[in-house]
Amino acid sequence: MNTFGRNFRITTFGESHGAAIGVVIDGCPPRLELSGQDIQPFLDRRRPGKSPLTSARKESDRVEILSGVFEGRTTGAPVAMLVRNEDVRPEDYAALRDMFRPGHADFTYQEKYGIRDHRGGGRSSGRETLARVAAGAVAMKVLGQAGIRIAGTILEVHGQTSPDAIEQEILAAKTAGDSVGGIVELVARGCPAGLGDPVFGKLDAMIAGTMMGIGAVKGVEIGDGFTVVKKSGSENNDPMTKDGFSSNHAGGILGGISTGQDIIVRIAVKPTPSIAKVQRTRDINGNDVEISIKGRHDPCIVPRIVPVAEAMLALVLLDCLLEQGKYW
Amino acid sequence: MNTFGRNFRITTFGESHGAAIGVVIDGCPPRLELSGQDIQPFLDRRRPGKSPLTSARKESDRVEILSGVFEGRTTGAPVAMLVRNEDVRPEDYAALRDMFRPGHADFTYQEKYGIRDHRGGGRSSGRETLARVAAGAVAMKVLGQAGIRIAGTILEVHGQTSPDAIEQEILAAKTAGDSVGGIVELVARGCPAGLGDPVFGKLDAMIAGTMMGIGAVKGVEIGDGFTVVKKSGSENNDPMTKDGFSSNHAGGILGGISTGQDIIVRIAVKPTPSIAKVQRTRDINGNDVEISIKGRHDPCIVPRIVPVAEAMLALVLLDCLLEQGKYW
Amino acid sequence: MNTFGRNFRITTFGESHGAAIGVVIDGCPPRLELSGQDIQPFLDRRRPGKSPLTSARKESDRVEILSGVFEGRTTGAPVAMLVRNEDVRPEDYAALRDMFRPGHADFTYQEKYGIRDHRGGGRSSGRETLARVAAGAVAMKVLGQAGIRIAGTILEVHGQTSPDAIEQEILAAKTAGDSVGGIVELVARGCPAGLGDPVFGKLDAMIAGTMMGIGAVKGVEIGDGFTVVKKSGSENNDPMTKDGFSSNHAGGILGGISTGQDIIVRIAVKPTPSIAKVQRTRDINGNDVEISIKGRHDPCIVPRIVPVAEAMLALVLLDCLLEQGKYW
Amino acid sequence: MNTFGRNFRITTFGESHGAAIGVVIDGCPPRLELSGQDIQPFLDRRRPGKSPLTSARKESDRVEILSGVFEGRTTGAPVAMLVRNEDVRPEDYAALRDMFRPGHADFTYQEKYGIRDHRGGGRSSGRETLARVAAGAVAMKVLGQAGIRIAGTILEVHGQTSPDAIEQEILAAKTAGDSVGGIVELVARGCPAGLGDPVFGKLDAMIAGTMMGIGAVKGVEIGDGFTVVKKSGSENNDPMTKDGFSSNHAGGILGGISTGQDIIVRIAVKPTPSIAKVQRTRDINGNDVEISIKGRHDPCIVPRIVPVAEAMLALVLLDCLLEQGKYW
Repeated sequence: MNTFGRNFRITTFGESHGAAIGVVIDGCPPRLELSGQDIQPFLDRRRPGKSPLTSARKESDRVEILSGVFEGRTTGAPVAMLVRNEDVRPEDYAALRDMFRPGHADFTYQEKYGIRDHRGGGRSSGRETLARVAAGAVAMKVLGQAGIRIAGTILEVHGQTSPDAIEQEILAAKTAGDSVGGIVELVARGCPAGLGDPVFGKLDAMIAGTMMGIGAVKGVEIGDGFTVVKKSGSENNDPMTKDGFSSNHAGGILGGISTGQDIIVRIAVKPTPSIAKVQRTRDINGNDVEISIKGRHDPCIVPRIVPVAEAMLALVLLDCLLEQGKYW
Repeated sequence: MNTFGRNFRITTFGESHGAAIGVVIDGCPPRLELSGQDIQPFLDRRRPGKSPLTSARKESDRVEILSGVFEGRTTGAPVAMLVRNEDVRPEDYAALRDMFRPGHADFTYQEKYGIRDHRGGGRSSGRETLARVAAGAVAMKVLGQAGIRIAGTILEVHGQTSPDAIEQEILAAKTAGDSVGGIVELVARGCPAGLGDPVFGKLDAMIAGTMMGIGAVKGVEIGDGFTVVKKSGSENNDPMTKDGFSSNHAGGILGGISTGQDIIVRIAVKPTPSIAKVQRTRDINGNDVEISIKGRHDPCIVPRIVPVAEAMLALVLLDCLLEQGKYW
Repeated sequence: MNTFGRNFRITTFGESHGAAIGVVIDGCPPRLELSGQDIQPFLDRRRPGKSPLTSARKESDRVEILSGVFEGRTTGAPVAMLVRNEDVRPEDYAALRDMFRPGHADFTYQEKYGIRDHRGGGRSSGRETLARVAAGAVAMKVLGQAGIRIAGTILEVHGQTSPDAIEQEILAAKTAGDSVGGIVELVARGCPAGLGDPVFGKLDAMIAGTMMGIGAVKGVEIGDGFTVVKKSGSENNDPMTKDGFSSNHAGGILGGISTGQDIIVRIAVKPTPSIAKVQRTRDINGNDVEISIKGRHDPCIVPRIVPVAEAMLALVLLDCLLEQGKYW
Repeated sequence: MNTFGRNFRITTFGESHGAAIGVVIDGCPPRLELSGQDIQPFLDRRRPGKSPLTSARKESDRVEILSGVFEGRTTGAPVAMLVRNEDVRPEDYAALRDMFRPGHADFTYQEKYGIRDHRGGGRSSGRETLARVAAGAVAMKVLGQAGIRIAGTILEVHGQTSPDAIEQEILAAKTAGDSVGGIVELVARGCPAGLGDPVFGKLDAMIAGTMMGIGAVKGVEIGDGFTVVKKSGSENNDPMTKDGFSSNHAGGILGGISTGQDIIVRIAVKPTPSIAKVQRTRDINGNDVEISIKGRHDPCIVPRIVPVAEAMLALVLLDCLLEQGKYW
């Protein structure tokens, strides 16, 4: 299933070391001003090779809009966008052809499909998120016109919370041939009340499913999340007054529907599974082997996941906004 | 959206104090032996009024199978199941008609639909989960034949972890006119490798979305969940040997696809929002008011959420199992 | 697949000689006045046993609304409706238990599911359409408020076109232990331009698929239909002037989108396959046998298909109307 | 809605005079040998500019597979295919920018979206079918391995039935600055019994909806189609014997499920709406104008619709075949 959304539907395609990565948006509102310049800054933000903290892969990630835009405006037809892969080095992966990298999808893809593109993880590569970010950029433009803003921040990396300490922590992991994970918080401001669709299209359910669907995410919280188990109902309920809610433990969602307050989401991101340290694994013939992953990898994927998570949250919110449009 | 699933699709209907709660299963495999006796034990398990820890509402919750079963076997036609509501006391809710209960969906339903059935939360009531449990019972029967077993346990309630301490904690909350929440862990054993569908139908994404879609759930984790941020990649990766995985930090899912190991999920359940303690809120005319919820409520919903969460996990797994059947 | 529609979604259930026939509507607009009295006249219209032209089965077909309506108005929650089967005579079908009736779904259900409810066709019975008509009644109420009206008429039965000749033709078929078919035309007036969604949700495509999905329908035409092959482009195109279209060969749809003109649809209905005349067939053990179907059957299903086809057209149009609401 | 199918899902994009036409296949079975050489012959068959009977537009229509194939085999990941537009002459359409061509989607797109790409019909152009044919080529390869073959033939063009007379008829229409339509019959051989999904996923319903969704199609019949109204039930039913069915009036489908016989479909194709003859229409400002369409057009679209209709039938059948795989 490579299609996401009910109303603003995106279909992504492409592998890490294949010809291209792309996305088709179906259901984009017509008459929206749109050009590559609306998309490119978002792609640049998630692009690798920009700092010692990220992968050294060199990609210009130039987006081409193939359809759905006429004289600078969307027409209601599908908006297809394409980014050609450039810095492809399949030979880097030749040694990994027959091995299952621990913590990666190599084994499960082989089990599921009976075949896999081993080059950089193929379809399971983080490079697929480029397509999501491109689509999310369009969604954010529509949301912006509705007064909705999304921002993600890094709360923690491997126990560190200040930017400088986080940077040190990541560089230390890199030096050690290891990796670290962290927590990202997302806040959406300006959402109207009424978004989300009980009982199986709840806003928090969609957000949770969407966030957990980003590679490396292992936990999702809305509002106070797991800390609710430490509180009583009288502490956790958000009182209302005639001026609105007095607090926001709920994270802006009640009964699966937005309250009009800030929507607050946190995700836990695991340490990058690609590490230089020697690990035990097996090969496709069932032999025990040792593996050390050389390639070009991020010692910490948390910074690059921020724009991806923002994009996915934008896609969910816009989808719900369009859904609500049907009835009002 | 009241339909859940791609292959084993359930559609639920009914309100807390309406005529009935029901579910239609579409896509149930044919030739499965099925009768009310397969369903009733699961409904009895989530039924209220059985202990001082749960709501005093008296419901027999007798299920009637209306269709889809012929001479004791499913036919491939939709299986509709109905439970009549019995202990309906709308008058209990007359005082709440014009008020928004804090922590409930009253306000958001009103904002979304411009109308709401205020009696016991109407559609947003936990009583809707009865339909999910009935459908889940059918799913579990099919899963059982495939060797898959699901079990949920309470890990913690308001800081307590032993059964006795948990019971005391709940009774104390009840006495105080307050409520408490907790953490439930679910484990699915016997799942084959290969379930789940990248990139937007990942097994963990579906589980997370499904769990967050259960009322009162505010957080979801797979495997080590939020604790991954405390570990390095070399600690978090699960090594493989020719005999299988050496650990299960991943919770049985890699790249969104099951590994064949136990699938491990944890959910955070908030304290029941209905409490006797006086709370501040507003009414539908925008006036500040005070509210004290009398009715018949669970001081802790955690025990009754266990069969619901098990049912929902069963629905996700069966759906993925049928999906996988298409290609093999 | 027992669910129909993208926005106004109906899920039907029930067999001819099972406990009940029912439907769940998901996505019904909130705040619509609705009671059983809005539904019952439509069910009465398709009800059997009213004239010598139809089956003698005696059913009161009383509809019960189980959910989704509060104090006389829809709430946005699923509207479930149930009709209990009353005049059930499974013994009438005992002789047919092991035989495949020609022209019926007996053989194909057995092939598809490996099991079948042989009583009156089970799920494949025309009685299932009762659920569609109930849902269609709700759709028509919403459409009526938008100024859209749907009417079906019988154009022809077995070569006859006048009402009296049609009645004689049907009675003659009944006397002969045989059956006849015919053509029904549907016209929808008052549809706004813009309904329908290229390229795979075209209005004419949805109508054609929906009509062919009614049992016994073997052909569908839009506008001039098959007669377009007799005309040149200059004859078939509908010229426009500043006052609108000068003709309506297209049947109110261009490029899969409504033009604002009348939408015109014709369907071909086959002769009822259940006939008293002796036919050759085989039994489930592969033996050649003869069959004469006694039961209570319509010698011509055409009159009773009219309200069903109207209901299905209403469902399609309302679904498209809600879809269009998302973007304007 | 630019996505088609439940299991073998295709999403098409692109406009007639935009950068490219493309398709993404999601749900393609893994491990299928696939290269551009499997696709190209099908594209060549629908390509224009090959005879005096078709449009003079010169397109090489070279397909590039962008993803989903690794070392010559599908991986289960989305198969994206792209064809760049070459012979683009937007200036040909400058005069039509503000006019609504009769019989085309110009008016309805404008009404629906409030904007349109007027160049060659934009998204509503027949050139979009290129993407369908490319996807259909993949479907046919899978079907071929299952022993299923599809063939379409022209039964009639504007009253003529022999190939020579048909050619003359088309050339005469061209000379007259006019156009003609016709009837195409499709036969699928080798389909197993059991395909199709009652009650809202019937095989005949899906075929009818799919065929009517091809531009210019105004009627669809299964089996005997509209001629059933001339027959009695005893003539129309297909008797069975222990050796199978004795006839095939039903066209290989009973109760919406395939019988194992040939599946027979006929479609009525309207005369091409683009004609040189002067027609009356209005412009976007509401003025009466005259129009004569010069460009490069097919005087009869029937021959080029054959491979498109075959492709779409292949997509439906494969989708049903995969659906059935879930339960057996």
